[in-house]
Amino acid sequence: MKYTILGTGAVGGYYGAKLQQGGLAVDFLARSDYETIKSDGLRVDSCQGDFILDSVNVYSSVQDMPETDVILVSLKTTANGGLYDLLKPLVKEGTAIFVLQNGLGMEEEIAALFPRARILGGMCFICSQKREPGHIVHLDKGSISAAPLKEEDRPLLKEIQADFTQAGVEMTLLDDLKTARWYKLLWNIPFNGLSVVLNANTKEMMESEEGYNLGKILMEEVVAGAAACGCTFEPGTVDNMLEFTRVMEPYEPSMKLDFDSRRKMELEYMYRKPLAAAKEAGVELKAIAMLADQLTFMENRKK
Amino acid sequence: MKYTILGTGAVGGYYGAKLQQGGLAVDFLARSDYETIKSDGLRVDSCQGDFILDSVNVYSSVQDMPETDVILVSLKTTANGGLYDLLKPLVKEGTAIFVLQNGLGMEEEIAALFPRARILGGMCFICSQKREPGHIVHLDKGSISAAPLKEEDRPLLKEIQADFTQAGVEMTLLDDLKTARWYKLLWNIPFNGLSVVLNANTKEMMESEEGYNLGKILMEEVVAGAAACGCTFEPGTVDNMLEFTRVMEPYEPSMKLDFDSRRKMELEYMYRKPLAAAKEAGVELKAIAMLADQLTFMENRKK
Repeated sequence: MKYTILGTGAVGGYYGAKLQQGGLAVDFLARSDYETIKSDGLRVDSCQGDFILDSVNVYSSVQDMPETDVILVSLKTTANGGLYDLLKPLVKEGTAIFVLQNGLGMEEEIAALFPRARILGGMCFICSQKREPGHIVHLDKGSISAAPLKEEDRPLLKEIQADFTQAGVEMTLLDDLKTARWYKLLWNIPFNGLSVVLNANTKEMMESEEGYNLGKILMEEVVAGAAACGCTFEPGTVDNMLEFTRVMEPYEPSMKLDFDSRRKMELEYMYRKPLAAAKEAGVELKAIAMLADQLTFMENRKK
Repeated sequence: MKYTILGTGAVGGYYGAKLQQGGLAVDFLARSDYETIKSDGLRVDSCQGDFILDSVNVYSSVQDMPETDVILVSLKTTANGGLYDLLKPLVKEGTAIFVLQNGLGMEEEIAALFPRARILGGMCFICSQKREPGHIVHLDKGSISAAPLKEEDRPLLKEIQADFTQAGVEMTLLDDLKTARWYKLLWNIPFNGLSVVLNANTKEMMESEEGYNLGKILMEEVVAGAAACGCTFEPGTVDNMLEFTRVMEPYEPSMKLDFDSRRKMELEYMYRKPLAAAKEAGVELKAIAMLADQLTFMENRKK
């Protein structure tokens, strides 16, 4: 199968490079970084071994891109307003759209725009950054948990899983996409937002009694929201995730990096959509709503 | 009656100077500012007319201070841990202790320390600052709402009211001290804390949909906490106070000035005591608890 990477950043740049390195055909969309990648290739400094792709099929516009089998959506969700125009020239009968974004509801929105596309969702557990144009730094982890939006597309996802495995990327298939999306939010909602409001990394938060308490309260609200939407987790999940966060290396979540670099934060899909989904299911998530309002205020103020 | 001012800052410096200017006998406690006030007097630049007190009975230690009838407690509540030692040499049978601080529960604590003192509480509606040692700037307002802790001390409070009136300070007597304290918290809890977390003044908060919403949610929780403690307000109080805040001149609450100057914030009496009182009355104030945890985190982090 042929792969097209929509967004050659920390996530798309890494997985696309791994796929090409693993022998698969890959096209990359890059906009601001197009010239650099065209002339210098794509460099990946990885904790699992550095490599450079000298020859990269890179494009600056989707209009020029050839046909494809699988589109990896690895843009920030803040760009999703323009996703229809980006996908339109690429999506044919049966094209797979594999959404590697954070948040809730992206797959359903894309399904509404392209009813005959085959839509898959992936949760990336990776610490990576784009250090400069065409230069990705992969610091830790790298696995993907994935599930199809519709069960009928599970065989397709298994084919993709085989390609990723061949390329050295671990992929776990999950039963239910919505539950998996909420599970990722369990971490993202507390620690992305708090890291911005408190101007702190995970270690600083978890070493403070109040920071720990805030994380726990928010996480428990995510559990309540998920449950209202029919998604439940194992007993002890909150405590396990707090403990996992407490012992992990100090980490600045992506939202903090975005805020500090004056990029738009992923508030819509990481906060507003889950809040709306919970509300529609009859549950008000007050602490999360408060955090979302604080973040929106801070974003607007920074402009 | 003779007055003793415990804390010659923005509040105590202003009201003490007004009382002396009005012909009353006043002693001032000043610690870091003692030398300046001793040699240069006390300067008040006031929107109602500037004046300087050339001769001030100022002391650097309560041990040296003469007997008094009324002690004005105008220290920040962050100093209340040392209040017993400050009051002990001054409090005799029947001494009046008039608490001009923000928060909840100060009067009850002082009553527990000095059971035979006559304790009064005052809510100051004033915009004033200490610009430098011995130099107070009074920007706006200036009235005090007051009530006795015990009803039997209302005649004493009326005598004090007459002295303040003579000195040109408007004082309104209220029926119930606890309700008055919660009423002041209605404004202090949302806008002090949010101004720190959002790094914004009142105008910036109230012009933002999210800032307004945060203020309203927090204020409604204060109403719920007050109600649980038996204190109720007129219908429409929240909307009126939001509107009052929306139209007032841009204002940085005292907690923001404290935080920005790396002084300790008044978290204990403005947040922890009201939270504890509401909890004891059976109500969890979740948004306020979250704000309090954020503020505590920010304070500890700044150290």
